[in-house]
Amino acid sequence: MKNFPFFHSALRFLALTLIVFFTHPSLANAQTANPDADALFLDKIYDHALTDSRCYTWLEHLSLGIGHRISGSNAAAQAVDWTRSVLDTLGLDSVWLQPCMVPHWVRGKAEQVQVVKSRRYGSFNLPALALGGSVAGNLKAEVVEVKSLDELDQLGSEKLRGKIVFFNRPMEPTHIRTFEAYRWAVDQRVGGASRAAKYGAVAVLVRSMGLRLDDFPHTGSLRYDSAYALIPAAAISTNAAERLSALLREEGRVTVSVRMNCQTLPDVLSYNVIGEIRGAERPEDVIVIGGHLDSWDVGHGAHDDGAGCTQSMDVLRMLKSTAYRPRHTIRCVLFMNEENGLRGGKKYAEEAKRKNEFHLAAIESDAGGFTPRGFSFDGDESVFAAFYEKITSLEPLLKPYGLHFSKGGSGADIGPLRAMKGLLCGYAPDSQRYFDYHHTADDTFDKVNKRELELGAASMAALVYLLDKYGL
Amino acid sequence: MKNFPFFHSALRFLALTLIVFFTHPSLANAQTANPDADALFLDKIYDHALTDSRCYTWLEHLSLGIGHRISGSNAAAQAVDWTRSVLDTLGLDSVWLQPCMVPHWVRGKAEQVQVVKSRRYGSFNLPALALGGSVAGNLKAEVVEVKSLDELDQLGSEKLRGKIVFFNRPMEPTHIRTFEAYRWAVDQRVGGASRAAKYGAVAVLVRSMGLRLDDFPHTGSLRYDSAYALIPAAAISTNAAERLSALLREEGRVTVSVRMNCQTLPDVLSYNVIGEIRGAERPEDVIVIGGHLDSWDVGHGAHDDGAGCTQSMDVLRMLKSTAYRPRHTIRCVLFMNEENGLRGGKKYAEEAKRKNEFHLAAIESDAGGFTPRGFSFDGDESVFAAFYEKITSLEPLLKPYGLHFSKGGSGADIGPLRAMKGLLCGYAPDSQRYFDYHHTADDTFDKVNKRELELGAASMAALVYLLDKYGL
Repeated sequence: MKNFPFFHSALRFLALTLIVFFTHPSLANAQTANPDADALFLDKIYDHALTDSRCYTWLEHLSLGIGHRISGSNAAAQAVDWTRSVLDTLGLDSVWLQPCMVPHWVRGKAEQVQVVKSRRYGSFNLPALALGGSVAGNLKAEVVEVKSLDELDQLGSEKLRGKIVFFNRPMEPTHIRTFEAYRWAVDQRVGGASRAAKYGAVAVLVRSMGLRLDDFPHTGSLRYDSAYALIPAAAISTNAAERLSALLREEGRVTVSVRMNCQTLPDVLSYNVIGEIRGAERPEDVIVIGGHLDSWDVGHGAHDDGAGCTQSMDVLRMLKSTAYRPRHTIRCVLFMNEENGLRGGKKYAEEAKRKNEFHLAAIESDAGGFTPRGFSFDGDESVFAAFYEKITSLEPLLKPYGLHFSKGGSGADIGPLRAMKGLLCGYAPDSQRYFDYHHTADDTFDKVNKRELELGAASMAALVYLLDKYGL
Repeated sequence: MKNFPFFHSALRFLALTLIVFFTHPSLANAQTANPDADALFLDKIYDHALTDSRCYTWLEHLSLGIGHRISGSNAAAQAVDWTRSVLDTLGLDSVWLQPCMVPHWVRGKAEQVQVVKSRRYGSFNLPALALGGSVAGNLKAEVVEVKSLDELDQLGSEKLRGKIVFFNRPMEPTHIRTFEAYRWAVDQRVGGASRAAKYGAVAVLVRSMGLRLDDFPHTGSLRYDSAYALIPAAAISTNAAERLSALLREEGRVTVSVRMNCQTLPDVLSYNVIGEIRGAERPEDVIVIGGHLDSWDVGHGAHDDGAGCTQSMDVLRMLKSTAYRPRHTIRCVLFMNEENGLRGGKKYAEEAKRKNEFHLAAIESDAGGFTPRGFSFDGDESVFAAFYEKITSLEPLLKPYGLHFSKGGSGADIGPLRAMKGLLCGYAPDSQRYFDYHHTADDTFDKVNKRELELGAASMAALVYLLDKYGL
C-alpha cells in the first residue's frame, strides 16, 4: 500500500467545475488559445477513453478472432473487411478502401534449424523463424560467428565460403529507449544475408532482436542485394544464440542444418482502410492518424500493430462521441504492408500527392499499446523548426497526462508524406517491454493492458484536437 | 517495426567521451554543481544497472524461494535472515537487525463466501479474501449493497441490523494516476466494517480495490473502531462484485454465507533489516532508501514490495561497485510490517529520534517495479518549499532517463520521519498496472519486467547520488 497525492486532481476538478459554469461551450472550436476550454475538452477525451472506449474490445477481435495477418494472407483480407465494417458504423463522412498490390511471402512448413551431432550434446533444435522475404533452403554447413557486417569483410571468402554466418551482436541494453538499441543491431537482420552471400556463405542465422533472454525467435524483414546470391536467413531466439555461441567456444566447430520452406508468391491486391470526418473550415487540409493493419505471421500482431490500428479507429469514434466538429479533415488510415514492403504507405502518399491533398500532420502509433510517454516529432527541415516551436507551446496542456514532446522519428507508413512538408509525429509509449514481444509468437492479446491501450488512444485524440484547433 | 531517433544517444556518447578525457574524476565528489561530471556518473549508474544489476535475481529468490511473507510468519523471518545475509556480502560499513514487535494475524483455513440458493443460479462461491486483521465468522445473512460509508448513516439500524453490507463503489477509472483512484475508494475497505457494525450489520463484503474486472480478490488492512462490534470483513473480486450486484438487481433478496477462520495471535518479535555506507564528510546525516519486507499472505509480494526492497539493496551495491564514496551516510532499510501495522516504520523513526540521527532525506519505493516516471516529494511545511526548490534545480539531470518531479505523497514507512524535517520522497513508477496485482495472489514474480525493475533501481541510485552530492 502506498499513499499518493490526490490534491492535484482535486484542484483540477475544482478548476474545471468553475470553467463549466463560466465558459461558453462554442469556445472549444475557436482558434485563439484558451487553456481552460482546452483542459476541459482534454479531460473529457481522457474520461471518455477510460470509461467507454472501444479499442480494447476491437483489439480482442483483431487478435483472437482474426489473428496474425501478414500481407497477402486471407487473414489480412479479413482484417480489411472487418475494420472497414467497423468504421462504417461510426457515422463518419466517408469510409473507403484504397487498393494497392502487396508482396505475398509465405513461410510454408515450419522451418527447422538444428545443431548436428555436437560432441557434447548430440543433435538439438534451435528455436528459429525464417526472416520475412527469405528464400527456402535445405542445407548443412559449419557455423562462423560474427558480431558485425564489417567483420565479414575482414574474414573474406576464404573463411566464409560454404559456411553459415551467425550474427550474434546483442541489442545494447544500456540504451534507455529500446528503439535505439534496436537501431544499432538491426543491420544484421536487414543486410546480413547479402553481405554474407558476397563472400560465398550459404545461409545466415541472426540473433533475435530482443533484449531479454528467452525462447521466442523474432522474425522481421531482410533486404536482399540482387548483386549476390539469395541465401536463406533465419532468426534464432536469444537463448539459442547464447547456446550456439557457447558451443562454438566449447567445441570450435559446429555444424548446423537449415530447412526452410518459405517462398514469395505473386503480388496480391490488398487495401489501406480509410475513414474520415470532413473538416468544417479547411476540409482540404488533412490530419492523419494511423497504424498498420498487417502483422508478421506469428502471434496475434497485438502490440505490433493491432494496438495502433484500434487506437486510431477509436480516435475518430471519440471525436464523434464528444460531438467535436473538426476544422480540418481528420482521417484514420490503417496501412497495409508496413512489415515487408511499405506498399500501403507508399500508395497512400502517392494518392495524396495526385489529389493534391495537403497533409497538415500525420500521426502514427506503431510502438505498441503501452503506457503513454509522449510524442516524437519530425518533418522536412525547411518547415520543421517552426512547427516544433508551435507544437511545444502546446505541450503544457498535455503534461497532466504524463506526455512529453521530443524531436525524432515518426513512423514508417507516414514517412513517404515527408515531401508534403507537413508535421510527422510518432506516438511514443513506454518502450521497455516492446522488444519482448515484437515480431514474435508472444505478441498476443493478453500482453496488452486495457488502461494503457486506452490512455494511448486518448493521448492521440488529444494531440489531434490540439493540432486541429491551433493548426501549425 | 518503427524507426526511432538515436542522435540523442550518439551526441551524449560524444559529449561524455570528451568529458572522460578532460574531467578529473575526483570532481564527482565536489559540492559545486558540475553537470558534465554528474551526467557521466549518472550514465555509469544506469549502464551498471542495465548490465550488471542484482535486483532481479534477488527478487526471484524473495518471490519464488521464500514467497509471501506476512508479518509474524516463518517466511517473514526467513526474509529477514536472507536479506541480512545478502547485505552482509556487499562490503557495507555495517549491517544490523532492528528489533520490533509485530502483529501476527493468520488467515487459517481458506475463507468461503457463498451465495446461497439464488432463484436463478442456485448456490455459488464468490472469490474472496478475508481482509487483514479481520475476525473469524461463520454466518449467513441477507446482503445490502451500498456505494459509500455515508449511505449507511441514511439506511440506519432498521435496514442494516443482521445484514451483510456489500460495499460496491468501484475505483474511479478516470484518474490518470491509479493511486488517486485507490485513495478515493479505499475508505470502504479500511473503515467499512466498523461503520456497518455501528448499525448492527453482521459482516461486510468489499469490492476489491482494482481497476480491471477479474477473479482475483484483493486483501488489505481494515481498521476496527473498538466502540463497535468486531465483525468479519472480506474482499470479493471485481467480477464477483459485478455478479453479486446484478443478482441483487435481478432477485431483490440475496443471502450469502460467510465462513472465515482468521485470528490474531500474540505479537511476534521481528526486525527491520538495515545496511549502510558511512558518510565520508557528514556521517551523522543519513539518507535512507527503502521498501517494506513484509507482504500480504497471497502471491509472492513481488511488486508489493519485494521490488522496492531488492531495488534499495541494489542501490547500495551499485554505489559500492562504482566506488562512489558518499559524503553522507547512505542507509538501506527494509521495513517490517508496513501492510498491517507499520510497526517497523514507527520503530525506525523512534530509534532515529532517540539516537538523534538527522535524516536529510528518506526515499521509499513502494509503488511496484514498473517503468520509472519520476519522484514525488513531501516534507514538513516549515522546510519543504526550500527543499523542493533545491531539488527541482537538479531535475534536468534526470530528464534523459524519463524522470520528472512532483509534489505529493512519499511512502508509509518513512512517514514517521516527517517530524525530523528532512525531505521525504516516493519513487513513482508508472502506476497503470499496479492495481492489477496489488494485494492479490497474482502479484507474482513473472509480472515483473527485468529492465523496468533495473531502471527503477538506477533511478533511485541517481537521486541518492544527487542528494548526497548537493545536500539540501
